[in-house]
Parts: sequence; C-alpha cells; structure tokens
Amino acid sequence: MSKEKIGITVSKNDDFSDWYTQVVLKAELADYAPVKGLIVLRPDGYAIWESIKKSLDEKFAKLGIRNGFLPILIPESLLSREKRHFAGFIPQVFWVTQSGESKLGDRLALRPTSETLAYSLYSKWIKSWRDLPLKINFWNTALRAEIKSTKPFLRTSEFLWQEGHTVHTSKEEAEKEVMNILQVYKSTIEKELAIPVVTGKKSEKEKFVGAVYTTTMESIMPDGKALQMGTSHFLGQNFSKPFEVKFADKDNVENFAWQTSWGVSWRLIGAMIMTHGDDIGLVLPPKVAPVQVVIIPIYYSDEEKQKVLKKANEIQNIFVKKNIRVHVDDREELTPGYKFHDWELRGIPLRVEIGPKDIEKNKVVLAKRHNKEKLDLSFDEINEKIESILDDIQKQMLVAAKKILEKMTRDVSNYDEFKSELEKGGFLQSPWCGKEECEAKIKEETGAEIRVIPFESENSSKKCVYCNEQSVSIPIFARGY
Amino acid sequence: MSKEKIGITVSKNDDFSDWYTQVVLKAELADYAPVKGLIVLRPDGYAIWESIKKSLDEKFAKLGIRNGFLPILIPESLLSREKRHFAGFIPQVFWVTQSGESKLGDRLALRPTSETLAYSLYSKWIKSWRDLPLKINFWNTALRAEIKSTKPFLRTSEFLWQEGHTVHTSKEEAEKEVMNILQVYKSTIEKELAIPVVTGKKSEKEKFVGAVYTTTMESIMPDGKALQMGTSHFLGQNFSKPFEVKFADKDNVENFAWQTSWGVSWRLIGAMIMTHGDDIGLVLPPKVAPVQVVIIPIYYSDEEKQKVLKKANEIQNIFVKKNIRVHVDDREELTPGYKFHDWELRGIPLRVEIGPKDIEKNKVVLAKRHNKEKLDLSFDEINEKIESILDDIQKQMLVAAKKILEKMTRDVSNYDEFKSELEKGGFLQSPWCGKEECEAKIKEETGAEIRVIPFESENSSKKCVYCNEQSVSIPIFARGY
Repeated sequence: MSKEKIGITVSKNDDFSDWYTQVVLKAELADYAPVKGLIVLRPDGYAIWESIKKSLDEKFAKLGIRNGFLPILIPESLLSREKRHFAGFIPQVFWVTQSGESKLGDRLALRPTSETLAYSLYSKWIKSWRDLPLKINFWNTALRAEIKSTKPFLRTSEFLWQEGHTVHTSKEEAEKEVMNILQVYKSTIEKELAIPVVTGKKSEKEKFVGAVYTTTMESIMPDGKALQMGTSHFLGQNFSKPFEVKFADKDNVENFAWQTSWGVSWRLIGAMIMTHGDDIGLVLPPKVAPVQVVIIPIYYSDEEKQKVLKKANEIQNIFVKKNIRVHVDDREELTPGYKFHDWELRGIPLRVEIGPKDIEKNKVVLAKRHNKEKLDLSFDEINEKIESILDDIQKQMLVAAKKILEKMTRDVSNYDEFKSELEKGGFLQSPWCGKEECEAKIKEETGAEIRVIPFESENSSKKCVYCNEQSVSIPIFARGY
Repeated sequence: MSKEKIGITVSKNDDFSDWYTQVVLKAELADYAPVKGLIVLRPDGYAIWESIKKSLDEKFAKLGIRNGFLPILIPESLLSREKRHFAGFIPQVFWVTQSGESKLGDRLALRPTSETLAYSLYSKWIKSWRDLPLKINFWNTALRAEIKSTKPFLRTSEFLWQEGHTVHTSKEEAEKEVMNILQVYKSTIEKELAIPVVTGKKSEKEKFVGAVYTTTMESIMPDGKALQMGTSHFLGQNFSKPFEVKFADKDNVENFAWQTSWGVSWRLIGAMIMTHGDDIGLVLPPKVAPVQVVIIPIYYSDEEKQKVLKKANEIQNIFVKKNIRVHVDDREELTPGYKFHDWELRGIPLRVEIGPKDIEKNKVVLAKRHNKEKLDLSFDEINEKIESILDDIQKQMLVAAKKILEKMTRDVSNYDEFKSELEKGGFLQSPWCGKEECEAKIKEETGAEIRVIPFESENSSKKCVYCNEQSVSIPIFARGY
C-alpha cells in the first residue's frame, strides 16, 4: 500500500495519454472488459453517469420529452432503408448471425444508433397532428466496432448514451427543438461538469449522415485536441420520407413530418477527467461527485477515537440534512495520510480533517481538492458555509476551464501560420470560403478538421485561410479525438 | 374514434391471452419491434419500469449496493467457464460473428446473464477482506432467444431487468444477503405493484444453473397459471472457484469468496397488467401510475370553458404541491365521454370530473378506476383527502389480489384429486418426498412444476402426493408461464 503503488506515476504534462488511463483505472471509475475495445463502469464511474442522466432527465421532462425503450437488434433491411445513413455506419456494425445452434435467416445489427428502428415505429404511431409533437428519449448503449486504438469513455465499441428522437408538424418547430436540446446539453455540461463548450454547426462534410444539418458542442482538452461533446441534428424530412412518418393535418391533408435526433454519451465523463484532473489524480466537480465531502477522523488512542468519531458523525449528520453526499472514512488500520491520498486520487472535492486538537479548538481543517487550499473553520462556520463552499468550488472549476479554453483559442488567417500554430494544439479560428475542397485539403495537409462553425461566425467577409477567396464563416479548426 | 376501435374488444374471462395483448397495445405500454420476439416500450410502459427501478434503487442503496455497467458482449471462452451454467444457456444465446466486413476470430455472446463477465472482473478487483462485501447491481437488458411463442413483458428475446452480484467473506453473510434481497423484492412487488407473492425455494431441478440454491417469489395469474416474479440465488463457491474470486483474510490466508446473484425483470409489468386489468383495459396501482389523477374539464360554452379550466388548473396546482402526478386533459374537439374512456383504458387510478354545475355546488365528481366507484367531494375535501384516497386504492388493490391468490391456492394430497384440481388452474399445495423422480413424473403426466417450496413448509411429515412416501416439504405445484 505504498504511495507509488496506488498513485498516478506520470505527470499530466509529460504523458497525457498514459496519465489519463492511469486516472481512469486507479480512481476506479472504469476497467477494461475481456473483449478489446469494451469497458466496464465501476460504481464511482457509473454514479457520475447517473448524475448526468438525472440532470438531463429533469430538463428533458420540462421540454415534454419522455423516455422509452428500444431493443438492441435491428434487421439489416430496416437499417439500410436510408442509404447514406447505412453507408455511413456499415463499416462499424456488429452482426448477429446465429441464435443457439441455428443460423439466422436475416442477419441482425446491434444498434449503432436507432433512427431507423424508432422511425419505423413512429410511422405506425403517428396518425394525425393530434399525435404531434412526439418526443421520446432512449437511455441505452450504442455499438460501433472501433478499429482505431480505443480509450476508456472516448472511443469504445459499446458506449452508454442517450438518443432522443422527436417529430413535429413544422420545420420551424423542429428547428427550435434542435436548438432547445443544444441549450439543455450546454447547461448540463457547463453547470454540472464545469466544462465550457463552443456551440455551432458542423460542416456538410462532418455532419451526421442523413441529417440536413448537425449542431454541435466542442471543447478543447488540455493536450490541445478537440473533443465533440454532443450533437443535435435537424433531420428535415430525410427520414420521414423513406420511413413514411406522415400525419394528417387539421384539414385532413397528409404531410411528411419534420424530425430531430440528438445525443450525448459517457464521453462527457472522459472530458471531465481530462479537463479537471491533475498529477495526483481525478478532480470532481461537486455536482457530479459520488461523494462530495469525506470526513477523516484522526486519533492516536482509543479515548481520542471515541471523541473524534462522535464529532465526525455529528458533522456527517449536519451534511446529510443538507442533502450533501458525505462519507466518514472510519477504516481501521489505515493512516490518515493514506486516506488523504486515497480520496485525493478519487477526486473528492472536499476533505474535512478532524482530530482531538481540533475538537479542543472547536474547529476542523477543510482541504479543497481542486486548488489544494486548506482552511480552518469553526463548527458553526462549517454548518453555515458548507453549501456555499461547494458552490464556489463548482464555479471556480468552470472559470479555470474557461481560461484554458480562451488561451487555447487563437485567430489565424494565414495558412503558414495556421500550420505552425496547429502544432501547438488548440482551436484555430480561421475564415473559410465554405467549399468542401478547401476543407478537405486542410484536413489532408494538416490533420485539422472543422470542429464547429460557431453560430455567431456564420457571416464573415474575410479571406479563406486556404484559398484566399471570400469567406462565409469563421469555423474552429483543430485536430480532434 | 369510435369506442369499438380503440377499446378492448374481448373479455378477460373469455380469451385471457387476446385480452392481455390488446391491453398492452391499446393502453400504449408497448408495441412489437420488427424482429420477432422483441418489443418496444412506449413512454407509459417505460414510466412504470422507472417507478420499479426507483423503488428498488432506494432499497438497494440502504443495503450498500451500488450500480455499475457491464458491456453486452461476452467472449465464448468466458461464458463457458462454469460448465453447467453454460450448458443451461447455450440453446438461447445470440452470437455476434461479424464486425463491419470482417469475420470475428472468436464469436461473442450477447449477455444472457452476466455472472461470468462480472466475476472475471471481481477476481481482479478483490484482493483482501477489506474489499468485501462487494455489492454491485446492473440495470441492463439480457438476451435469450425465445423459440416458444413470445408475449410482451412475459416472454421476449430481449428484456429489461436488473442483475445484482455480491461477494462476501462468509457463507452466512452471503445467505443473509440472498434473503435481504428477496425481502426487498417482495416489498416493492406487494407495496408498489399490489401483487401478493409466495416466497420460498426452487427445487434442485428448477434452480438457477450454477447456483447452490435459488430462492423465488411466485404469483398466480387470473388465468390460473403461475408466474415467477424474481429470484435471488445463493451461489456458494460454485463461481468463485472457476473464476478465482479469492480474498486474503485478516490472517493473510487466501479463501474463495461466497457469492449471490439476483434479478427481477419487466415481467413484473406483465404480472401487474394481468392481475389488475379488467374488460375496459389497464388498471394501475397509484404508486406506479405515470399519471395518478386525470382532471377532465366539462363545458358547453366558451364562458363555461374559461370558468371550468380555471378551476381545473387550481386543483391541478394543489395536487402538484402534494407531489401527485396529475394531468388536465384539455384537448379540444374531444367529448368528455371519449376522454373518460381513453383514460380508463390507460388505467389511470383517479378521474376528477368538473363542470359548471359542480363549480356552482362547490364540488367535483371523483371516479375510481379500480372499483368504478364514483363520489362527490367538496373542494375542501378533495384537498384534504386526495392522498388518503390514493393510499386506500393502493391498499384495496393488494387486498383484492390477495383474496384471489388465497382462493386459487388449495391443499391437495391425493394424486387423482391433484390431476383434476390442476385443470382448474391455481396453486396446489401438495406434500412431496423430495425426490426428483416424483417431481419429473408429475411434470410429465400433468404439466405441473414445483413453482416454489414455501419457507414455512420446509419440514413436513405427510405422504408424497405422487409416491406416498414420507414427505419433506409441501411445495406449490402449478402450470406456469
């Protein structure tokens, strides 16, 4: 149980990739499954996912979205009905070909996404305008075989996500829904996970296969690579036509419906680890931490032990009444130092240390995980201030992450500069003529993609960073995960 | 929109099976998926599952059980490590043999249950007694190809369930966990779903493949067939040995751990539909109803409409404050009669009717779904009594179901009587010598299985209903789903 053995043995700056994997495994968020490319979530990892789920569920409910369940198996004939969509997914589809001892007639796909299945059902369920809008969300997993090297939370062949699918009578209403969802996502990601995002559109080349357009949220990781945090797609009538999602309007005229689909995945957990973690390990924003405050009793005799544990339990009870997730670490035979280190590795936002001397002085020591600040607080103060201290930590973590995002975002209008700046990582804001040819050339020559075209940059009259022609927007270019 | 079209067209007594399917589909709980044997949950069906989940999660947390995530793909080599277990499941396993365009080296099973996967991980995670007990639950789906005819919720090739897997240092602690879980299940099923169950053990022949013994809860459906409501297994060291789930005890001696596994599935929703439904449709216990009270405003003029809607919203607000799930059905162009029928079909426990005359008289009409009782209540009374009215409905539904269970349970000690009584359906309590031979003969000759050996009947000194030798217990025999 030496520090070396359980601690992180590499610095975040020296080897980001190894650092990340060590944090995931040693903080016991996840582990590798026996099949390559698949991971398991341990209770602390899953608890973070449940926090995200709860936050989104509450916001979805306010938008009139309800949850449902779809099976994982989709017949090939259904999956292939929207041709571009199918072509986009087919290299990654897992196929079931056998059941028990018998070979299946038609092979069945493990859901890479459920548009095709959901819409074949929607077309049965929707008869008239009365049935619309129809808004259903599905919490499930999607399966896409990853050939590239996999990374827990960021690139796995099965991932936890939610996929929402809505149907509307009008284009306007559907487009509004696309934006409402993007706002819901942004709010959860910024306010709960303390990760700032840039919202905008994907380029034609990068949009979801089958969508009219894709809106997206992008963030930048400390290693300078961009990460897509979630997408909300306007599908127009691209699916309602092949899947016959039609409704009779008030005049009893039949129309094809307007649709949206949208999703975020456990990739958000990966982004949170990368954004906030440090050389000691995980750093959790209070809102999603499975344990928000850990209390460490410190004693050297049985008499002290009794006194200290009594006080620790008192403080615990105060926190429980405030709905703070608190844990008293009363494990025997482990030193306080070992415990400090254990909970720091696990990223618990606040540690309360309490020993006999503290009790005499009517105070405790508070240690903040995110900035390593320590302070003494009287028992009264801790009762009064604990909630605002947690709130402040939550806010400070977002502010710190925002500063990094800003620092890593640069305006670049010259292609040589573009290439050299790109080597430093980060977001490059560079004017673009809108032609897929320039976008493809940039990607080919530098590895940078258009990650997002920020909404506010959609009108631009500068010169394209690649061809020098009139630009139409200022996308964010970056190399990505 | 005639009554015939949306209503249930067959009586529960005349054709139970068709009645059941109609209720599932027409109350919009579920629908068939394009792949035979698979179903989809619509929002009302999924909301019931979420209620069950919430109830169990709260109770699991009190037992120190946390949730995790396991991937759906299990390598064949792992699934086959416990031989009897594998042999039991293999006829029903779906196999993935292809990913994208490439054939997989080893075929991968879609999880029929996760013992093998979970325990291969547990063996890595557990080092010493400090790591125990380890208690993790997984909310996911299991896949078992159904060859027999499928039935929504009761027999489907993919089903929503939870599977819990715990590890302990001692046999005693593990066996206690098995019973704790059974109690948790019983409490949720009786208090939330209002379905009475008989708890006890499965026979050796009927136990979970790989378990030392299986405890179970059985209920009887109105058609006289038994339904297994959930099981909690004592695995002993049957899995810890092949999977090397070992721990160092306080003296640093290595031991094989003691394990349990347990699960309930969406089959509980099927049982709830069957137990409480009637010729009009679904009848929901208030605790799991997505909407507990529906308010129907009744008016014939615009002036009345305004007045009535205002009052309806007032009452709605009162209910919302009491955390009652309430809905005002203000759909235009639909008659109150149509709405009454629609919500009755959907099984909403309470309907509040409010028209201009009611407002004059300062009262509303309350209609209870489960016993079709109607009563007038003043506005004050409704405010005071609404919660106790819902509580009473919940309790009355369980009492009614208990009466049916009692009526359908008979003591039978003679084999001729056994055969004739069996034709009437229900639970037959018959002494048994404990020999698998008699059990098998009874099954072969009558189709009746030992559904459960009630705990209180485990010592019996009567004569076996089949061979007339000394009995060891009085199991419940029945034909089952």
